[in-house]
Amino acid sequence: MKKEDIANHLIALETAALEAWNNGNPDKFLNIYAQDFTYFDPLTEKRMDGFDWIKDFYEGARGKVKVDKYEMINPAVQATENMAVLTYNLISQVGDTIYRWNCTEVYRLEEDNQWKIVHNHWSITESLKK
Amino acid sequence: MKKEDIANHLIALETAALEAWNNGNPDKFLNIYAQDFTYFDPLTEKRMDGFDWIKDFYEGARGKVKVDKYEMINPAVQATENMAVLTYNLISQVGDTIYRWNCTEVYRLEEDNQWKIVHNHWSITESLKK
Repeated sequence: MKKEDIANHLIALETAALEAWNNGNPDKFLNIYAQDFTYFDPLTEKRMDGFDWIKDFYEGARGKVKVDKYEMINPAVQATENMAVLTYNLISQVGDTIYRWNCTEVYRLEEDNQWKIVHNHWSITESLKK
Repeated sequence: MKKEDIANHLIALETAALEAWNNGNPDKFLNIYAQDFTYFDPLTEKRMDGFDWIKDFYEGARGKVKVDKYEMINPAVQATENMAVLTYNLISQVGDTIYRWNCTEVYRLEEDNQWKIVHNHWSITESLKK
Protein backbone atom coordinates (compact mmCIF):
# COMPACT_ATOMS: atom_id res chain seq x y z
CA MET A 1 0.00 0.00 0.00
CA LYS A 2 1.44 3.38 -1.00
CA LYS A 3 1.79 5.99 1.75
CA GLU A 4 -0.80 8.20 0.11
CA ASP A 5 -3.23 5.28 0.01
CA ILE A 6 -2.56 4.47 3.68
CA ALA A 7 -3.23 8.11 4.57
CA ASN A 8 -6.51 8.22 2.67
CA HIS A 9 -7.62 4.88 4.12
CA LEU A 10 -6.89 5.87 7.74
CA ILE A 11 -8.56 9.27 7.40
CA ALA A 12 -11.64 7.54 5.97
CA LEU A 13 -11.71 4.99 8.83
CA GLU A 14 -11.34 7.76 11.39
CA THR A 15 -13.98 10.00 9.81
CA ALA A 16 -16.54 7.18 9.73
CA ALA A 17 -15.83 6.31 13.38
CA LEU A 18 -16.08 9.96 14.45
CA GLU A 19 -19.40 10.39 12.62
CA ALA A 20 -20.86 7.39 14.46
CA TRP A 21 -19.39 8.51 17.82
CA ASN A 22 -20.88 11.98 17.36
CA ASN A 23 -24.28 10.31 17.13
CA GLY A 24 -23.89 8.17 20.24
CA ASN A 25 -22.58 5.01 18.55
CA PRO A 26 -19.13 3.81 19.70
CA ASP A 27 -19.14 0.64 17.57
CA LYS A 28 -17.08 1.96 14.66
CA PHE A 29 -14.28 2.96 17.02
CA LEU A 30 -14.54 -0.27 19.02
CA ASN A 31 -14.34 -2.25 15.76
CA ILE A 32 -10.95 -0.69 14.97
CA TYR A 33 -9.32 -0.81 18.43
CA ALA A 34 -6.60 -3.43 18.86
CA GLN A 35 -6.48 -5.78 21.86
CA ASP A 36 -3.43 -3.92 23.25
CA PHE A 37 -5.10 -0.49 22.86
CA THR A 38 -3.79 2.32 25.10
CA TYR A 39 -5.59 5.59 25.81
CA PHE A 40 -5.18 9.11 27.20
CA ASP A 41 -7.92 11.70 27.51
CA PRO A 42 -8.45 14.85 29.65
CA LEU A 43 -10.67 12.98 32.14
CA THR A 44 -8.56 9.88 32.82
CA GLU A 45 -6.13 9.97 35.76
CA LYS A 46 -3.43 8.00 33.93
CA ARG A 47 -2.93 5.98 30.74
CA MET A 48 -5.72 3.40 30.46
CA ASP A 49 -4.76 0.09 28.91
CA GLY A 50 -6.49 -2.68 27.02
CA PHE A 51 -9.49 -3.27 24.79
CA ASP A 52 -11.69 -4.42 27.68
CA TRP A 53 -11.21 -1.12 29.48
CA ILE A 54 -12.10 1.05 26.48
CA LYS A 55 -15.07 -1.16 25.64
CA ASP A 56 -16.53 -0.65 29.14
CA PHE A 57 -15.76 3.07 28.99
CA TYR A 58 -17.43 3.52 25.61
CA GLU A 59 -20.42 1.34 26.47
CA GLY A 60 -21.07 3.80 29.31
CA ALA A 61 -21.23 6.60 26.74
CA ARG A 62 -23.44 4.76 24.23
CA GLY A 63 -26.42 6.88 23.25
CA LYS A 64 -25.27 9.82 25.39
CA VAL A 65 -23.07 11.71 22.93
CA LYS A 66 -24.63 14.13 20.46
CA VAL A 67 -22.22 16.41 18.69
CA ASP A 68 -24.12 18.90 16.56
CA LYS A 69 -21.26 19.97 14.29
CA TYR A 70 -17.65 18.97 13.92
CA GLU A 71 -14.68 19.79 11.75
CA MET A 72 -11.55 17.65 11.34
CA ILE A 73 -8.76 20.15 10.71
CA ASN A 74 -5.58 19.46 8.78
CA PRO A 75 -5.32 15.66 9.19
CA ALA A 76 -1.79 14.36 8.61
CA VAL A 77 -0.52 10.80 8.37
CA GLN A 78 3.10 9.75 8.96
CA ALA A 79 3.32 6.13 7.84
CA THR A 80 5.55 3.12 7.46
CA GLU A 81 4.19 0.06 5.67
CA ASN A 82 2.57 -1.40 8.79
CA MET A 83 2.31 1.40 11.36
CA ALA A 84 1.17 5.01 11.05
CA VAL A 85 0.24 8.00 13.14
CA LEU A 86 -2.76 10.14 12.19
CA THR A 87 -2.96 13.56 13.84
CA TYR A 88 -5.50 16.35 13.54
CA ASN A 89 -7.24 19.14 15.35
CA LEU A 90 -10.97 18.75 15.90
CA ILE A 91 -13.59 21.37 16.58
CA SER A 92 -16.79 19.91 17.98
CA GLN A 93 -19.91 21.86 18.88
CA VAL A 94 -22.47 20.63 21.40
CA GLY A 95 -25.29 23.15 21.75
CA ASP A 96 -23.57 26.49 22.29
CA THR A 97 -20.34 24.96 23.59
CA ILE A 98 -17.35 24.60 21.30
CA TYR A 99 -14.56 22.16 22.15
CA ARG A 100 -11.15 22.32 20.47
CA TRP A 101 -9.21 19.08 20.54
CA ASN A 102 -5.76 17.76 19.73
CA CYS A 103 -5.97 14.17 18.51
CA THR A 104 -3.31 11.50 17.99
CA GLU A 105 -4.24 8.05 16.65
CA VAL A 106 -1.59 5.36 16.12
CA TYR A 107 -2.69 2.67 13.69
CA ARG A 108 -1.06 -0.73 13.06
CA LEU A 109 -1.64 -3.13 10.18
CA GLU A 110 -2.74 -6.41 11.78
CA GLU A 111 -2.13 -9.96 10.60
CA ASP A 112 -5.60 -10.06 9.04
CA ASN A 113 -4.56 -7.06 6.90
CA GLN A 114 -6.86 -4.65 8.77
CA TRP A 115 -5.58 -1.36 10.18
CA LYS A 116 -6.39 -1.05 13.88
CA ILE A 117 -5.78 1.69 16.44
CA VAL A 118 -3.22 0.74 19.09
CA HIS A 119 -3.06 4.13 20.83
CA ASN A 120 -5.27 7.22 21.10
CA HIS A 121 -4.48 10.52 22.84
CA TRP A 122 -7.12 13.26 23.13
CA SER A 123 -6.42 16.59 24.77
CA ILE A 124 -8.00 20.03 24.88
CA THR A 125 -6.17 22.56 22.70
CA GLU A 126 -4.51 25.27 24.82
CA SER A 127 -5.74 23.66 28.04
CA LEU A 128 -3.03 25.46 30.01
CA LYS A 129 -4.36 28.84 28.87
CA LYS A 130 -7.85 28.26 30.27
CA MET B 1 15.78 -5.87 16.78
CA LYS B 2 13.44 -7.74 19.12
CA LYS B 3 10.43 -5.85 20.45
CA GLU B 4 11.79 -5.97 23.98
CA ASP B 5 15.09 -4.50 22.77
CA ILE B 6 13.25 -1.75 20.86
CA ALA B 7 11.29 -0.91 24.01
CA ASN B 8 14.39 -0.71 26.18
CA HIS B 9 16.24 1.35 23.58
CA LEU B 10 13.42 3.90 23.16
CA ILE B 11 12.87 4.27 26.91
CA ALA B 12 16.61 4.88 27.33
CA LEU B 13 16.62 7.51 24.53
CA GLU B 14 13.59 9.24 26.05
CA THR B 15 14.96 9.18 29.61
CA ALA B 16 18.27 10.72 28.53
CA ALA B 17 16.47 13.44 26.55
CA LEU B 18 14.12 14.19 29.46
CA GLU B 19 17.03 14.45 31.90
CA ALA B 20 18.74 17.01 29.68
CA TRP B 21 15.48 18.93 29.06
CA ASN B 22 14.82 19.09 32.81
CA ASN B 23 18.15 20.88 33.15
CA GLY B 24 17.53 23.42 30.41
CA ASN B 25 19.20 21.56 27.54
CA PRO B 26 16.95 20.71 24.56
CA ASP B 27 19.74 19.18 22.43
CA LYS B 28 19.05 15.54 23.23
CA PHE B 29 15.44 15.90 22.11
CA LEU B 30 16.39 17.96 19.05
CA ASN B 31 18.93 15.28 18.10
CA ILE B 32 16.18 12.66 17.92
CA TYR B 33 13.44 14.66 16.18
CA ALA B 34 12.79 13.74 12.54
CA GLN B 35 12.51 16.36 9.78
CA ASP B 36 8.75 15.72 9.51
CA PHE B 37 8.22 16.04 13.27
CA THR B 38 4.69 16.99 14.42
CA TYR B 39 3.79 18.31 17.87
CA PHE B 40 0.90 18.98 20.26
CA ASP B 41 1.19 20.51 23.72
CA PRO B 42 -1.21 22.36 26.09
CA LEU B 43 0.07 25.79 25.01
CA THR B 44 0.00 25.45 21.22
CA GLU B 45 -3.12 26.56 19.39
CA LYS B 46 -2.99 23.72 16.85
CA ARG B 47 -0.66 20.93 15.70
CA MET B 48 2.76 22.41 14.98
CA ASP B 49 4.69 20.87 12.11
CA GLY B 50 8.29 20.44 11.11
CA PHE B 51 11.76 20.25 12.65
CA ASP B 52 12.45 23.96 12.06
CA TRP B 53 9.43 24.95 14.14
CA ILE B 54 10.33 22.77 17.13
CA LYS B 55 13.96 23.85 16.94
CA ASP B 56 12.96 27.52 17.23
CA PHE B 57 10.48 26.70 20.00
CA TYR B 58 13.04 24.74 22.03
CA GLU B 59 15.83 27.27 21.47
CA GLY B 60 13.52 29.78 23.13
CA ALA B 61 13.40 27.52 26.19
CA ARG B 62 17.12 26.78 26.37
CA GLY B 63 18.47 27.43 29.86
CA LYS B 64 15.02 28.35 31.22
CA VAL B 65 13.71 24.95 32.31
CA LYS B 66 14.68 23.55 35.70
CA VAL B 67 12.66 20.58 36.83
CA ASP B 68 13.64 19.63 40.38
CA LYS B 69 12.26 16.11 40.41
CA TYR B 70 10.53 13.91 37.89
CA GLU B 71 9.15 10.42 37.64
CA MET B 72 8.39 8.54 34.40
CA ILE B 73 5.46 6.29 35.27
CA ASN B 74 4.63 3.00 33.61
CA PRO B 75 6.31 3.49 30.22
CA ALA B 76 4.91 1.18 27.53
CA VAL B 77 6.11 0.57 23.98
CA GLN B 78 3.93 -0.82 21.17
CA ALA B 79 6.31 -1.60 18.32
CA THR B 80 6.62 -2.89 14.81
CA GLU B 81 10.09 -3.43 13.37
CA ASN B 82 10.45 0.17 12.19
CA MET B 83 7.83 2.25 14.03
CA ALA B 84 6.80 2.33 17.65
CA VAL B 85 4.77 4.36 20.12
CA LEU B 86 6.11 5.03 23.59
CA THR B 87 3.56 6.26 26.15
CA TYR B 88 3.92 7.18 29.81
CA ASN B 89 2.67 9.42 32.55
CA LEU B 90 5.15 11.93 33.93
CA ILE B 91 5.15 13.73 37.24
CA SER B 92 7.44 16.76 37.26
CA GLN B 93 8.04 19.03 40.20
CA VAL B 94 9.19 22.64 39.83
CA GLY B 95 9.57 24.27 43.24
CA ASP B 96 6.32 23.52 45.05
CA THR B 97 4.32 22.98 41.85
CA ILE B 98 3.62 19.46 40.65
CA TYR B 99 2.64 18.84 37.02
CA ARG B 100 1.08 15.57 35.89
CA TRP B 101 1.49 14.82 32.20
CA ASN B 102 0.26 12.37 29.60
CA CYS B 103 2.97 11.75 27.00
CA THR B 104 2.87 10.07 23.59
CA GLU B 105 6.05 9.72 21.50
CA VAL B 106 5.97 8.05 18.08
CA TYR B 107 9.39 6.82 16.97
CA ARG B 108 10.44 5.68 13.48
CA LEU B 109 13.57 3.77 12.45
CA GLU B 110 15.29 5.97 9.88
CA GLU B 111 17.41 4.93 6.90
CA ASP B 112 20.59 5.52 8.90
CA ASN B 113 19.30 2.92 11.42
CA GLN B 114 18.62 5.56 14.10
CA TRP B 115 15.26 5.79 15.89
CA LYS B 116 13.82 9.29 15.65
CA ILE B 117 10.65 10.88 17.01
CA VAL B 118 8.12 11.78 14.30
CA HIS B 119 5.31 12.88 16.62
CA ASN B 120 5.00 14.06 20.22
CA HIS B 121 1.81 14.84 22.17
CA TRP B 122 1.96 16.31 25.69
CA SER B 123 -1.15 17.03 27.72
CA ILE B 124 -2.00 17.73 31.34
CA THR B 125 -3.55 14.72 33.07
CA GLU B 126 -7.19 15.34 34.02
CA SER B 127 -7.06 18.84 32.51
CA LEU B 128 -10.87 18.85 32.17
CA LYS B 129 -11.26 18.34 35.92
CA LYS B 130 -9.32 21.48 36.85
